[in-house]
Amino acid sequence: MGIFPPPAPRITLVGAGPGDPELLTLKGLKAIQTANVILYDALLSEELLAYAPADIPLVYVGKRCGAHSLRQEEINDLLITSAYTYGHAVRLKGGDAFVFGRGGEELLAAERAGLAVAVVPGVSSALAVPALAGIPLTHRGVSRGFWVLTATTSGHVLPDDMEQAARSEATVVILMGTRKIREIAALFARHRPTDTPIALLQSGSLPGQVTTIASLGYPETLAAAARTQVQGIVVIGAVVAALLAKKASPASCVPARY
Amino acid sequence: MGIFPPPAPRITLVGAGPGDPELLTLKGLKAIQTANVILYDALLSEELLAYAPADIPLVYVGKRCGAHSLRQEEINDLLITSAYTYGHAVRLKGGDAFVFGRGGEELLAAERAGLAVAVVPGVSSALAVPALAGIPLTHRGVSRGFWVLTATTSGHVLPDDMEQAARSEATVVILMGTRKIREIAALFARHRPTDTPIALLQSGSLPGQVTTIASLGYPETLAAAARTQVQGIVVIGAVVAALLAKKASPASCVPARY
Repeated sequence: MGIFPPPAPRITLVGAGPGDPELLTLKGLKAIQTANVILYDALLSEELLAYAPADIPLVYVGKRCGAHSLRQEEINDLLITSAYTYGHAVRLKGGDAFVFGRGGEELLAAERAGLAVAVVPGVSSALAVPALAGIPLTHRGVSRGFWVLTATTSGHVLPDDMEQAARSEATVVILMGTRKIREIAALFARHRPTDTPIALLQSGSLPGQVTTIASLGYPETLAAAARTQVQGIVVIGAVVAALLAKKASPASCVPARY
Repeated sequence: MGIFPPPAPRITLVGAGPGDPELLTLKGLKAIQTANVILYDALLSEELLAYAPADIPLVYVGKRCGAHSLRQEEINDLLITSAYTYGHAVRLKGGDAFVFGRGGEELLAAERAGLAVAVVPGVSSALAVPALAGIPLTHRGVSRGFWVLTATTSGHVLPDDMEQAARSEATVVILMGTRKIREIAALFARHRPTDTPIALLQSGSLPGQVTTIASLGYPETLAAAARTQVQGIVVIGAVVAALLAKKASPASCVPARY
């Protein structure tokens, strides 16, 4: 800083991955290392911020105590102002910025404000967390595709598209599903065999990762795990059991450590 | 090499991302740097192999001229033998190893052979390529979820689950869709409004990335683009137009370069 002219204003939207800081991409790392200001969310590892230049502002814009500390429009405005003030503004988001991350809204707002925006996709929790739990979303002879949706709605009911997903034969991945795990299991049990496996994956990609597996007809163990209040990803379909049933030890499929 | 005892045999399955070598994760990089042997696919950037130690075997096991150079079972066997021969065997796969990557089969085979297997999820082409083309798979007020499937089948017809997907209201992402783009558009046009936007994304994340957008009722421009024979990802749903229509210039959303 302190140089003249100041750096050209621009924005990079970076998907930071599901939680494990080593699941950041090389391109995401370069963006952080060349940032003049960083806006970051909750759910993000503090280790990622250690890659930033020492003297730049690091601005927390995530949820606090279950409530948004900033509305989306306020984040958009702050992102734009930050770029014009400091130069290269990096928006660091958990998972993939464009999947349930509202990255599209931030991209639109920034471009309307005349800023160049680059996108660095991240490892999506929706796919990576099942993989790390030993659940391949596609597997030959078991599943040829998958449907990803979120359990959160503005109201207290499950969204309509979840009923459609339950009626289909697709492997279904539900984000933010912990608090509605009983309703989800009940909905799918109305449309699929009750012995269909369902998994709740909590703290995915992190050392405290927990995998809980049940069947649609007996969701009690899931509900017990859900009481821990840790957000989680729900997977429903035969792939849940495809590898686990055949493996010598599920514990042998762990996130890689070096 | 040359030390005694030899390195302990183990396998790391690494998702290398959609094509841009900078979309490798930090953990994937560490795996490559600590490999004693690497088995890699087509579609992978040669730049990734430059991270490997200088003296290790780099074994190509991908498709050649449209035909598998090795059957999946042969790849499994080679992976296991490589680990027992050299130590840390890294299986480097395009995209995310567990999404249409048959990583689950390699994981199972290796564990049955008594090997420890670690999984390093990658950036999935199914999500990242649309993001880089300015298409968020979810966007507030437009799409709350998405269904990912593949157009390839053992026969020459579209798979049954694609009919289900067409009947649903989900945003649909179809991998390996280039050669069947006319059939895909026709199938979806039977179930959705003909003005529904459909995009064909070719060479996603690479400098030659091409985005072609049409509507289900007028798929001619897609078919023309598909004649280039470059594999592509198809996206169907309102999100295709959600950002592009509002942006000053689609060209401003490009893969980030540093």
